[in-house]
This record gives sequence, C-alpha cells and structure tokens, in this order.
Amino acid sequence: MYYNCRFLNFAIEKYNVKRKQFGTVQESDINYFKSILSEERVLTDENDVLPFNIDWIKNCRGQSKVVLKPRNTEEVSKIIKYCNDKHLAVCPQGGNTGLVGGSVPVFDEVVLCLGLLNKIISLDEISGVLICEAGCILESLDTYVRERNLIMPLDLGAKGTCQIGGNASTNAGGLRLLRYGNLHGSILGIEAVKADGTVIDCLTTMKKDNTGYHLKHLFIGSEGTLGIVTKVSINCPVLPKAVTVGFFGVKDFQSVLKLYESAKLSLGEILSAFEMADFNAINSSVTNLNLPNPIDEYPFYVLVETHGSDEGHDAEKLNRFLDKEMESGLIIDGTVTSEPAKMQTIWNLRESIAGSSLTRGYVFKYDVSIPLGNYYDLVPMLRKKLGNKALDVYGYGHIGDSNIHINIVVPEYTKEIGSQIEPYVFEEVSKLNGSISAEHGVGFRKPQYIHYSKIESALDLMRELKTLMDPKGILNPYKVLPEK
Amino acid sequence: MYYNCRFLNFAIEKYNVKRKQFGTVQESDINYFKSILSEERVLTDENDVLPFNIDWIKNCRGQSKVVLKPRNTEEVSKIIKYCNDKHLAVCPQGGNTGLVGGSVPVFDEVVLCLGLLNKIISLDEISGVLICEAGCILESLDTYVRERNLIMPLDLGAKGTCQIGGNASTNAGGLRLLRYGNLHGSILGIEAVKADGTVIDCLTTMKKDNTGYHLKHLFIGSEGTLGIVTKVSINCPVLPKAVTVGFFGVKDFQSVLKLYESAKLSLGEILSAFEMADFNAINSSVTNLNLPNPIDEYPFYVLVETHGSDEGHDAEKLNRFLDKEMESGLIIDGTVTSEPAKMQTIWNLRESIAGSSLTRGYVFKYDVSIPLGNYYDLVPMLRKKLGNKALDVYGYGHIGDSNIHINIVVPEYTKEIGSQIEPYVFEEVSKLNGSISAEHGVGFRKPQYIHYSKIESALDLMRELKTLMDPKGILNPYKVLPEK
Repeated sequence: MYYNCRFLNFAIEKYNVKRKQFGTVQESDINYFKSILSEERVLTDENDVLPFNIDWIKNCRGQSKVVLKPRNTEEVSKIIKYCNDKHLAVCPQGGNTGLVGGSVPVFDEVVLCLGLLNKIISLDEISGVLICEAGCILESLDTYVRERNLIMPLDLGAKGTCQIGGNASTNAGGLRLLRYGNLHGSILGIEAVKADGTVIDCLTTMKKDNTGYHLKHLFIGSEGTLGIVTKVSINCPVLPKAVTVGFFGVKDFQSVLKLYESAKLSLGEILSAFEMADFNAINSSVTNLNLPNPIDEYPFYVLVETHGSDEGHDAEKLNRFLDKEMESGLIIDGTVTSEPAKMQTIWNLRESIAGSSLTRGYVFKYDVSIPLGNYYDLVPMLRKKLGNKALDVYGYGHIGDSNIHINIVVPEYTKEIGSQIEPYVFEEVSKLNGSISAEHGVGFRKPQYIHYSKIESALDLMRELKTLMDPKGILNPYKVLPEK
Repeated sequence: MYYNCRFLNFAIEKYNVKRKQFGTVQESDINYFKSILSEERVLTDENDVLPFNIDWIKNCRGQSKVVLKPRNTEEVSKIIKYCNDKHLAVCPQGGNTGLVGGSVPVFDEVVLCLGLLNKIISLDEISGVLICEAGCILESLDTYVRERNLIMPLDLGAKGTCQIGGNASTNAGGLRLLRYGNLHGSILGIEAVKADGTVIDCLTTMKKDNTGYHLKHLFIGSEGTLGIVTKVSINCPVLPKAVTVGFFGVKDFQSVLKLYESAKLSLGEILSAFEMADFNAINSSVTNLNLPNPIDEYPFYVLVETHGSDEGHDAEKLNRFLDKEMESGLIIDGTVTSEPAKMQTIWNLRESIAGSSLTRGYVFKYDVSIPLGNYYDLVPMLRKKLGNKALDVYGYGHIGDSNIHINIVVPEYTKEIGSQIEPYVFEEVSKLNGSISAEHGVGFRKPQYIHYSKIESALDLMRELKTLMDPKGILNPYKVLPEK
C-alpha cells in the first residue's frame, strides 16, 4: 500500500511552507539515538521510514529520514532533550489516524513514534480510574476495561489504530461525547515531556485535585506542540448492561431539532448518541457501498442510541419516545433494536458515510461546529452556490455536540472549485459563531484558517505559551499556530 | 456581624508574609476609578470596605482601603490595565465563600468585586448552553435554568452566595461531580481579562472546538492569579424528572466501598451522589444541631441519590439495590424516599456536618482526596495520634470523587496541637498519592503545602505561567504559588 505512496507529492510542494532553521540529522545523532534506544529502535531505511512520512488520508507526505521508537518516558525525555540541545525538530506520532496532517513530518523532522509505550499501568476497578502509557491503542484499552465492567469514555471510528496519547493530544471527541463528556473532563492526570526534556508528572488519579494550575490541559488538544504526552490517567464509566439503537425517518431539519429536544427529555440519562444524516449522506452509503437501509427513504435520518443499566426500562423509555413522536408526526417511520447485529447494521450505515464517496471523485470534507439553530444552514447554501459543479453535497453528524460533517463531492480537484469553497465555508461558520474544526484539530492543514474561530488576542496568548514551553520551536513545527 | 470583625487579627499577623513592592492607592487613583465607574461604585468608607476584607470563615482579614464594583468587562479591563500600569495589586472577589483565604486581600490590594457583572446573556434551550456574566449567583442561575427543564452542572453548600465566576476560578466541585463531571468538562467557553487588561474572548458555546490551545483552562482553577473571569458559557444537563434519596447504615468502611461498587453497577446512569459519613460525623449534626436521624446509629452511613427521567424505573432500581444489599448484609438498615421534605431532612443531616462542631471549640478542617482503597485511613490514624487531646475526629465526604473531609475538634487552638496535625496530615495524604486540597483550592493558606501534591518541575512550570500571564504579579498576590 505504501509502495504507491512513493509517488505522492511532498506536502511542501502542495502547501507553501518554508523549512525553518533547524539542524539536520547527522550520523553522530543517529549513533546517539542508537546508544540510548538500541539499533532496532532507530529506523533509517527508506522503506521503514516511508509509512511514518504519510498521513492516513494520503494528503500529506513529509521527508523524515529517521524514526525513533522509545519504550518509556525516560527514553522520550533523553531524545527530546538531545533534539532541543541540537536544535533538531521533532514530530511526535501516535496511531497516525489524524485528518489534518498533524501527525506526519513536513520536512525532515525526527519522527518520535510513541507506539512502544504501550503498557497498562493500573486500573482501580472501584473508582474506574485507568492509568496507561500513551501508545496504548484505544480499542485495546476498551477491551481491557470492558472485561472489568467499565468502558473507555470515548469512542471513534479509528479506535482500532489510534492511541490514547494521540487522543489526549488532539482532544479527540467522537460518537458519545454527548453522554460521557470531553477529554478535558475525563482525563484526570497526564505525564508529559517538555521541549527541554523535563518530565511533568501530573499523573494523579484523583477526580478532585485543586492544588495549583491545572497543567494537564496544556497538553490536551495542543497536538504535540507544547509537550509529548507519555502517560494518562483516565476516568472510565460503568459498562452499560443494555444498549438500544433507534433509526428514524424525519421530514425536515426542524423536525430533527425538535426530536433532539424531545429525546433529551424522554430519554434523559440513558441517551448516549443522537446522530443525524440527510438523505444524500445515507444514500451515499447505500448506493456506493451497497449497504442496506432498514427503513424507507426520507429527507433526514436520526440515529438514537441508549446506554443503560436495565434493558426493560430502557426499551420502555425508547418505545414510549417512539410512540409519542410517531403520533406527533416528528418521526415518520422508524425501527428500534437491541440485537447486536441489527444495531451494527445501523451504525455501519452511519459510520460509512465518511468514506462512501471517495471513489466518485474528489471530496472536500469539513468538520465544523455550528449552533443548533443554524446547524444545517451551510448544506443548502453550498448546494445553491456550487450548483452542478458539485456531484453531491451532504451533511451528517453529532447533533448532541452541535458538530456537523459536510462533504462536497466534485468530479476532480481543481483550484477553481477549491477557491469557491474555501474560505467561504470558514467565513460562514465564523459568521454563525461556530468552530471551523470541531474534532479534527488544526494540524498542518488549517493554521491559516484558525483566525475564523479564534480572535487575535487569543492567538497571541497561544504564541506566548508556545514560546514559553518550547522556545526553540522544535515540537511539531509548522502545525497549529499560523505564522504572525 | 461584621462589627465584631474589627477585632479580628490581620492575616499578616497570623501568617508570616511580607508585603511586596506594589504601589499604594493614592487620591489620584481613586479619582481615576471614580471617573470610569462613577462615585457610588468606588467604596472607600471603612465600614463599607470591611466585609470585603474578611473571609467567610473569619480566618483571614486584609487591609484593603478600596473596593471597585465594575459593571461590565470593559470596566474590568480598564481597571486592571490601570492597576498594572501603576503597579497596584488587585484581589478579585466573587461571592467570598472560599475556605482558604483566596478571595480576600492580604495587605492593601484593590478589591475587585465582580458582583455587578450579573447578567444572564443567553440560554439555548435545545443544546442546554447558558452564557452569563461572572457575578451571577449559582442558585439564581439554577433557578433560571430549572424553569427551562435544565439544571446547573454543579451544586454546593454555598450556592446561595457563591458566583459562577468564582466557581470557575476555583474549579468548584461539589456534591454531584460524580454524575455531571467537573468544570473543565462543563464550561465550554470563558471570557477573561489578563493582567495587562487584554480581554481574552474564548466564549464559544460549542461542545467541540479544536482550534488551537484550549486557553479557558488557564483560568479555570487558577484562583484569579492568571486572569479575571468575566463571562462563562456552560453546559447545563437536563432537569431530572425524578429524584430519590436513600440513607443507609453500614457496619464498616470496607462495606461502604463494596456498596459503592454495587451502586455503580445497579444504579449506573441514575446515580447522582454517593456520600459517606462516619458515626461521629452524623452524631455531630444530631447532637450539636438537634437534627433528626431517620435511622438508628451505625458505624458508617451512606447517602445515595438518584437523578432520572422516570420515577417508577428509578424507584425500582433503588429498591432492587436496597433489597439485594440488605440481603447481602452490606446494608444493615436503611430508608428510601422521594418525598421532597424527607429528602431534605437527609441532605440537611449530611450538609450540616461541616458547621456542626464550630461551637464546641476550634476545628481543624481538611479537604483531601485519597485513592479509595485508603480513603478512610487517616481518620483512625489521627484518632490514635491525638488521643484525648482531640474532642472529636471524624470523616465524611464524596466517595464517588475520592474526596474526604476530615474535621478535628479540639478545645481551643494551640500551636502545639497544630504542629501535631500539620504537616502530618499533608505528609500522609502525599504518601497515599492523594491531593492535599481536593475542592477548596490553595488560596492564601496552603501555598506552603502545595509541594505535598505537586512535584517541583510542575511548580516551576506554574511559576513560568504566572510570569508569562502576569509579569508584575498584580493579580491576587500571595496566593496559590509558594515563594521559590
């Protein structure tokens, strides 16, 4: 798979960016890395290094010559301190599942692969607090805690590959944030390595700890530019004994909103996901991927999931909700199931939307937050603006988090169509007081658009924090913050 | 009430602290403040200023000569910029309900009263996002959102007086953190004024917004030392339609823990509080305050509360839990009620513990987090260590958050007894990997103990942040961080 990627353009050819005055990795540096890591954990062979240079969606390709695979915090600290002293830039990499080019090098940064920091350190089964290293894969952690009546507080499509350190560094959101909250709330403690190699150990397991500034938040969501997350402690909710999924057809977007309001009141504490997709989005999964749709065709679809501790109670609540809203007319048609295979069919239909149009042409993909009243506005606006230049425009996402994903399918990428879409999308999101990157972060691809969501005084403070924490700018350069 | 306080010692006489080289407020400064605020919002009369100089528990008394009452962010910004330029120290004050002397001046700092920033700006009833100014009182906000089927995500004893800006600045925890999470998770956006007067507007209402560093967390829990919170946007959960309270007698602490584990599994998503108190704690409320105990005397008591959307379902779950654990023997005796008056009686008994011993002598009060396995260890250790020097030692708190409050009642305060208790308590908490301040913060009274919970490299980073954000150190000086 990576063989073809040899022909992928380098990011620097697609994006206008200049290499900063960092050092270049020398033979002597390689020897130093080998002395602390051993031979086999320093990759320099071009074939070995290639996969670490290319991001998951094959949009960004860097030119790193070396990948380092530390096995513990001490090794990470030594590497970072050395790189800082020698002024070598570093690109930390977790599962490399990011969508904004944040996890791959741009030029010849040293790739710091965190995958071997993969030990589970402890789990307190009563309090539900898990401590583990940054390289643990989310799905493995979820499997581990599920055997002990707990679940991880986040779930996302990339769970089989993404790592918890990357989740923390990118403040990953996902499907059930509505229920279990965000990582700033769920992560109780962090151990991180600063740019000078200092280990900041704030790895508390306490849910309440008001002793000084809450430093962990500097590392949550800063995409590896302020420090390298090496361990996390995280609060795991109780495994739900009962899971139910409902899939409903709805006549218009206003009905989707009304249904959400009703679901919050009727389902309250058991509501674990409230997802929407328009007809074109579901149709893209059905038509392009041959997936079955368990109900008829409707202008909008809603997927409701419940997590609860009593199957009978949950089914009663969900059926009561269904009866009420079928009578009110908000739901035109629907199905409710707690059979695992059927629930999987419904989730598949929803989760496959993201990749369903990739074979039809080029897909412009946006991940934005917009206040609920205007949540869907951008989709008809884009359809009107682009007319028949677009093969398809559709929206789907997490209503409960005000987070909509908008896909625009065009026959092929051209600068002209690109310039009609960007910065238009960001301008409109900004006018609606939304966020131009809800979940995916800023990474390499969006620093030039960050001002649509953050004012200059906030960006200035971010730059000051960067200078404070990483004065030589070696940590994940060219990412997150725009040049002044 | 404040009249007697004229005779309270100044904090600087009780604590060994030297005034820093700040300017002293001059006539010309007062005139400037009057020019931007108007006469009546600049208090200089000694009687008017006195209440702002004394903290709620009458432990700390400062010597401020002036209280400023801005009405909006712009006025706060002008005041802070002026004070920074003139090198005048500032003590921000919300409801002044803090327990560590963080909200009152130490010397002659200018008191910045936030109480007139008390407007509710907006409430999105579908998403549940409230935007309001910092001076809004928590209980008023709760009343406002309850009328719209929502509740505030935090609840604490001081709710009738404390302000949301102070809650944010101190990362207030409270009774239902177990269910609704902490403020780092619930607060979506913040507007704050930096020491140089710059307004940092990060007042998003989006639950997902990954555009750059998450600056709001710098202001949550930093106790007004990094900036002044002027507005917050906060996520409000759905109002529970059904509330039920159970109060149980238990034979020993191990049974309390087992009961918590069982409650998490049996009650799952409806569990909203799990509180414990030992015999002496409840007995203190019963004996000193003449409060009724609805059950017999037991070595330990557990208060379980549920918040749910279906009264029948919740009662069924709670009764099933009660039946199961009475049969298992974990619960010796208990009562379950959803009658508001009866629930209030039980909560009163629990919430009155904190103040119940104040008439018996001097009370050393600790608010610590300790991992659950060792949660109660310190109480018997202190009883043994102090013997008959203490009139009473008891523990109570929020099991679900690993947070225990320990009270030590002595006939009167003496340095000798004080030196037997401190730093012993903090040393033991540190050995158990706990936090020496779970909820109450560091304020003026605990900087010298912060190293028991935070390592030096973390404290260094905190000092660097302070220097970055407030280079002249004018914001709430003498608080939070110890001198190096």
